[in-house]
Amino acid sequence: SKYEYVKKFELDDRLLPGVWLVCRIDGRGFHKFTSEHAFRKPNDLRALELMNKCASRVLEEFDDVVVAYGQSDEFSFVLSKEAALFKRRSAKISTAIVSLFASSYVFYWKEYFHEEVLRYPPAFDARIVCYPNIEVLRDYLSWRQVDCHINNLYNTCFWTLVESGKSPKEAEERLCGTFSDDKNELLFSDFGINYNDIPAIFRRGSILRWDLVDKMVKRASGKEVQRVIPAVVTVHDDWIKDAFWIENPRLLEG
Amino acid sequence: SKYEYVKKFELDDRLLPGVWLVCRIDGRGFHKFTSEHAFRKPNDLRALELMNKCASRVLEEFDDVVVAYGQSDEFSFVLSKEAALFKRRSAKISTAIVSLFASSYVFYWKEYFHEEVLRYPPAFDARIVCYPNIEVLRDYLSWRQVDCHINNLYNTCFWTLVESGKSPKEAEERLCGTFSDDKNELLFSDFGINYNDIPAIFRRGSILRWDLVDKMVKRASGKEVQRVIPAVVTVHDDWIKDAFWIENPRLLEG
Amino acid sequence: SKYEYVKKFELDDRLLPGVWLVCRIDGRGFHKFTSEHAFRKPNDLRALELMNKCASRVLEEFDDVVVAYGQSDEFSFVLSKEAALFKRRSAKISTAIVSLFASSYVFYWKEYFHEEVLRYPPAFDARIVCYPNIEVLRDYLSWRQVDCHINNLYNTCFWTLVESGKSPKEAEERLCGTFSDDKNELLFSDFGINYNDIPAIFRRGSILRWDLVDKMVKRASGKEVQRVIPAVVTVHDDWIKDAFWIENPRLLEG
Amino acid sequence: SKYEYVKKFELDDRLLPGVWLVCRIDGRGFHKFTSEHAFRKPNDLRALELMNKCASRVLEEFDDVVVAYGQSDEFSFVLSKEAALFKRRSAKISTAIVSLFASSYVFYWKEYFHEEVLRYPPAFDARIVCYPNIEVLRDYLSWRQVDCHINNLYNTCFWTLVESGKSPKEAEERLCGTFSDDKNELLFSDFGINYNDIPAIFRRGSILRWDLVDKMVKRASGKEVQRVIPAVVTVHDDWIKDAFWIENPRLLEG
Ligand SMILES: Nc1nc2c(ncn2[C@H]2C[C@H](O)[C@@H](COP(=O)(O)OP(=O)(O)OP(=O)(O)O)O2)c(=O)[nH]1
Ligand SMILES: Nc1nc2c(ncn2[C@H]2C[C@H](O)[C@@H](COP(=O)(O)OP(=O)(O)OP(=O)(O)O)O2)c(=O)[nH]1
Ligand SMILES: Nc1nc2c(ncn2[C@H]2C[C@H](O)[C@@H](COP(=O)(O)OP(=O)(O)OP(=O)(O)O)O2)c(=O)[nH]1
Ligand SMILES: Nc1nc2c(ncn2[C@H]2C[C@H](O)[C@@H](COP(=O)(O)OP(=O)(O)OP(=O)(O)O)O2)c(=O)[nH]1
Ligand SMILES: O=P(O)(O)OP(=O)(O)OP(=O)(O)O
Ligand SMILES: O=P(O)(O)OP(=O)(O)OP(=O)(O)O
Ligand SMILES: O=P(O)(O)OP(=O)(O)OP(=O)(O)O
Ligand SMILES: O=P(O)(O)OP(=O)(O)OP(=O)(O)O
Ligand SMILES: [Mg+2]
Ligand SMILES: [Mg+2]
Ligand SMILES: [Mg+2]
Ligand SMILES: [Mg+2]
Ligand SMILES: [Mg+2]
Ligand SMILES: [Mg+2]
Ligand SMILES: [Mg+2]
Ligand SMILES: [Mg+2]
Ligand SMILES: [Mg+2]
Ligand SMILES: [Mg+2]
Ligand SMILES: [Mg+2]
Ligand SMILES: [Mg+2]
Repeated sequence: SKYEYVKKFELDDRLLPGVWLVCRIDGRGFHKFTSEHAFRKPNDLRALELMNKCASRVLEEFDDVVVAYGQSDEFSFVLSKEAALFKRRSAKISTAIVSLFASSYVFYWKEYFHEEVLRYPPAFDARIVCYPNIEVLRDYLSWRQVDCHINNLYNTCFWTLVESGKSPKEAEERLCGTFSDDKNELLFSDFGINYNDIPAIFRRGSILRWDLVDKMVKRASGKEVQRVIPAVVTVHDDWIKDAFWIENPRLLEG
Repeated sequence: SKYEYVKKFELDDRLLPGVWLVCRIDGRGFHKFTSEHAFRKPNDLRALELMNKCASRVLEEFDDVVVAYGQSDEFSFVLSKEAALFKRRSAKISTAIVSLFASSYVFYWKEYFHEEVLRYPPAFDARIVCYPNIEVLRDYLSWRQVDCHINNLYNTCFWTLVESGKSPKEAEERLCGTFSDDKNELLFSDFGINYNDIPAIFRRGSILRWDLVDKMVKRASGKEVQRVIPAVVTVHDDWIKDAFWIENPRLLEG
Repeated sequence: SKYEYVKKFELDDRLLPGVWLVCRIDGRGFHKFTSEHAFRKPNDLRALELMNKCASRVLEEFDDVVVAYGQSDEFSFVLSKEAALFKRRSAKISTAIVSLFASSYVFYWKEYFHEEVLRYPPAFDARIVCYPNIEVLRDYLSWRQVDCHINNLYNTCFWTLVESGKSPKEAEERLCGTFSDDKNELLFSDFGINYNDIPAIFRRGSILRWDLVDKMVKRASGKEVQRVIPAVVTVHDDWIKDAFWIENPRLLEG
Repeated sequence: SKYEYVKKFELDDRLLPGVWLVCRIDGRGFHKFTSEHAFRKPNDLRALELMNKCASRVLEEFDDVVVAYGQSDEFSFVLSKEAALFKRRSAKISTAIVSLFASSYVFYWKEYFHEEVLRYPPAFDARIVCYPNIEVLRDYLSWRQVDCHINNLYNTCFWTLVESGKSPKEAEERLCGTFSDDKNELLFSDFGINYNDIPAIFRRGSILRWDLVDKMVKRASGKEVQRVIPAVVTVHDDWIKDAFWIENPRLLEG
């Protein structure tokens, strides 16, 4: 039609080739969302597992995602530097990922939250950041895991203090100016909690990746046989340390 | 942390001030999605009303959206040229809108599709296009409505032919090379269908906008009173014609 | 060759259609350049006329430039909103303009500075800014002319004070906190200078545009005849006032 | 002033950190420029040395340029991946480089072209391309050198044929469909020219880089002493081969 010329106002937003693309999504206003849905404090396992479920849908849908990392209300999806998804069009990648994640969040809600009713549909923002080499990409991943660690250590202390009878204000004051060591010490001395015994998913977040797993598959004959098939697996390792990358040398290669 | 420098790789994506922003979303692979969910042909009213519901959530959430237009598996959200949402950061705007839309689609599915089970979470892409003046913005809106009209006229003929016993291939051949007039004529002569009698939502799509509506509100005293409040209203007007814009002179001003 | 794939790293930088493009160039380190070349203070007519000459080369070279405005060490080139120069590729436009301007500056130097030797080749930066409508574009042009006025009024006072025997420090202190009126008054009362008598090129900068001018042209027969031909003309009008735009209604249309 | 808001229309164009930036400039319409200035064919040493001179000015001005490569009417400037020049603002970098180059071209013209008068000021375009790793950056540099080689071999054959009495059309036909080997053979068999004896600057272009060179410096006492100082040096090496990079391991590090 004579109106089609308006399509020329769409500008090209292709991303630089040869760099890793990280699509990070983050829940919009989850301070309110978590409180309206009575998320457990400081961590709600149901919420984290729901997030991981949604993320695994993203991995299954988009081949170019080589690994994903989630914590709190956020998830980072790493696309291989050779990724050609949507010709590397930035908006296409971020919106396809974030919308699938958001719709999955509602779709799978009941599977994790059972009788807790979802009161309104959540939204997420997403952005794409280019990382040109493995070193800076690893630093990105470390950044998010450090963030998880710091928040979780703080929140664990905070809610432990509150549960022990302190007011939120008192708890905050007690923690003000403390370092990691102080917080570990506080948990151990005052409450007998060894921080390292807290589930790794809370302390380190979740790493989702493709791996080969054994699976029983039913043959046409009805006989069950074991097969090695690719599947998304979730681990809660410390990937700030070199050891992780020595053990997983090809993880970021796609 | 020492890793925070990675945030510097996030580049500024703010959009030009003073231009209208159109965020258009479109269902990913809805050819498959509509067929797996047995959408009615050529139009499924439940689907269109669900789309409109999701879009109205977007309008309610984001003040800067002055009007929205939907048809088929797509919706266009027009943000006022003064919009300051997310400081006009492109990725923030598109991802917040598209993720709310997608999660709403699942959230409200049952309200429109009842016993028809949602089999998997749908995704949408989104893009933002800048339009610098009213003329080209109106042409954009006309473009989408013409697209709706052309597709709907074709699909109406196609499925009418198929229902009458033709094979899809025969129907396609019958329509090949025909103009609008021919198709109107075909519907009328062969099937007694006056195309203009088909519901306007199918022929013209849906325009969603803010308006003042009368509403009965319950006072504290228990007494019901009538109040004029702003609400999202849906119309199916022809906005290709000047008449629409003469009647709605301030629609795009925000 | 097998190396050609590196061309894929060149990203598209086309600018939005339908908006005016302003390419503003500005001398790099002209504080030093003007002092090393003993530019007259506060204004050097030779320098301004050289700038205008270079700018007129740009207009002659690039049709899409509808008007240009210069003052101090800067020039703004306005490209029509329909401009298709280099398919609106941003880097192409800015670099072609700025490099022609810079090479012209050296090329024509002697014509304006005569025996004053050019000691080193000057550089300019350039940027392109999109302006979506006439109002904001006019405000841009007013912004540059107000800037010219403010700087020139200040510099005129400053150098008049210095010439009268004040030290630069004393002159600065005398002017500190004064408004436009105070400065006009100072010039008039203390030095008998009516600011409005200062050449318009200093007070208002230079507007370059295409116009039809009468020119004597020699025919093949040798006879001279008058012809109306398009040429770049330079004026020093006040275009902050509406009057200018009423008199030049089509100036920005290209 | 109240007009200053127009500055908000300037958008951020900072380039990705951590990647090499290549600014390639290329003469505009040098087909015409070289012919109007009677450039020697197939190569004009004066022109190439003038280009190199201009490029060395760029290196001297901008620390972040680690190496430059020139051939024909083009030059590529490689900025280190840590370059912070103009906060990596793309337009600032490209326009400052290209305008300095263009003004230098006129400034130094006479030094190389002597009595050959410069008839008009030349322009250059410039673009910036990001290269994320050494491999692709080396491929970029090889791409330009291969381009130099292919054009020069062709042009050498073409003009040798023309000088030998062939018409341009005949020369073109003679070369049509020939490979490198054929062209080397043609030069050698028919004209006794060993292509490798042709000056390296023509065959391989020019690499400009910083190096430490010995220089005689006059002391205050009047005595001349040898000093090692950094200076831009020009070589015509083959940097497609690994050998070059083994010998110059830190060249691209800045
Ligand atoms: N109780 C509880 N709260 C959580 C859990 N995971 C995340 N949250 C909450 C804590 C924070 O208030 C919020 C995430 O912080 P953000 O910085 O993303 O802020 P928020 O989403 O409110 O705002 P935003 O729209 O992202 O700027 O979600 C959880 O497992 N349990
Ligand atoms: N049966 C039925 N199909 C519909 C209805 N609305 C949309 N569709 C189908 C028709 C098209 O196959 C599809 C929309 O076309 P698109 O061009 O958006 O293609 P699709 O979403 O498959 O691919 P995409 O990911 O957008 O490139 O959705 C409806 O009301 N009823
Ligand atoms: N004496 C004299 N100086 C002038 C004349 N026109 C411009 N200038 C000087 C005054 C300023 O120091 C300088 C222009 O100011 P800018 O803000 O452009 O600064 P500059 O070019 O030094 O730095 P930049 O590289 O643009 O950030 O040029 C003139 O006609 N006479
Ligand atoms: N005779 C002669 N010509 C040369 C020499 N170096 C370059 N040229 C000419 C050959 C080509 O016609 C031209 C460079 O080719 P380009 O592809 O850059 O084309 P041109 O600059 O004409 O157009 P452009 O504005 O870059 O698209 O310059 C030389 O040393 N001698
Ligand atoms: O959202 P914050 O405050 O955690 O930090 P951010 O995500 O970097 O900020 P923004 O969402 O505004 O990009
Ligand atoms: O998706 P299409 O084919 O209707 O057309 P488009 O949306 O303009 O194409 P794309 O989704 O690739 O931008
Ligand atoms: O150069 P200035 O300081 O007059 O102001 P600007 O040109 O807006 O700054 P920049 O050259 O850094 O864009
Ligand atoms: O100028 P060309 O044709 O040698 O090739 P290019 O430089 O890649 O093309 P453009 O100057 O249009 O970017
Ligand atoms: Mg955020
Ligand atoms: Mg959040
Ligand atoms: Mg968060
Ligand atoms: Mg599409
Ligand atoms: Mg679709
Ligand atoms: Mg569609
Ligand atoms: Mg500046
Ligand atoms: Mg300056
Ligand atoms: Mg200036
Ligand atoms: Mg080119
Ligand atoms: Mg050229
Ligand atoms: Mg060239």
